Amino acid sequence: MVHTLVASDRVEHAVVYGRDGTTLGTIERLMLEKVNGTVAYAVIKTGGLLGRHHRYPVQWAALRYDPTRKAYEAEVTLDDLRTGPSEFDGDAFDWGDRTRSYPHAQYWTV
Amino acid sequence: MVHTLVASDRVEHAVVYGRDGTTLGTIERLMLEKVNGTVAYAVIKTGGLLGRHHRYPVQWAALRYDPTRKAYEAEVTLDDLRTGPSEFDGDAFDWGDRTRSYPHAQYWTV
Repeated sequence: MVHTLVASDRVEHAVVYGRDGTTLGTIERLMLEKVNGTVAYAVIKTGGLLGRHHRYPVQWAALRYDPTRKAYEAEVTLDDLRTGPSEFDGDAFDWGDRTRSYPHAQYWTV
Repeated sequence: MVHTLVASDRVEHAVVYGRDGTTLGTIERLMLEKVNGTVAYAVIKTGGLLGRHHRYPVQWAALRYDPTRKAYEAEVTLDDLRTGPSEFDGDAFDWGDRTRSYPHAQYWTV
């Protein structure tokens, strides 16, 4: 029996590993399209060196759940994210402006 | 400027009013389709008389956000939910079996 559904509060805080096996961070939250109820992207929060976290938007389809590790695997590496086009800077998540700054084309996609 | 995205952890715990204006409860969590990343339904947790809560699955499209009240309005009433086909019984949310028991046809839909 394969469960086809997953709860939003189970996805939040789940660990995400990169394509190369290193830990990217955890899923902080999902951003949903209000109208059609689809996940636009997941916000990955990195570990935080010296208390400084980074946040990156990653497309849902780029995440694959690994039931053995009870964690997600992403089709990117931490270097991909760091050198990529999209980052939520700092610890304060700006609910309004940040979503405006990240059109779909800037997500990490597969 | 209309924001088209909403964060999963903002939807969780939001109050839901019924079609007749009475409070249905709060959104406890969203259940997502793993593969395509769409919201299958929201789990509405009712207020709980004598500490007893009820949980009902309601389709995302049946919920409309009211920015004035910062709450959701559902296209159903509490009586609709109580007499309807679908309830998660009790306080213990069974992650596995419950999702299997609730095919799409049994959601509250609009």
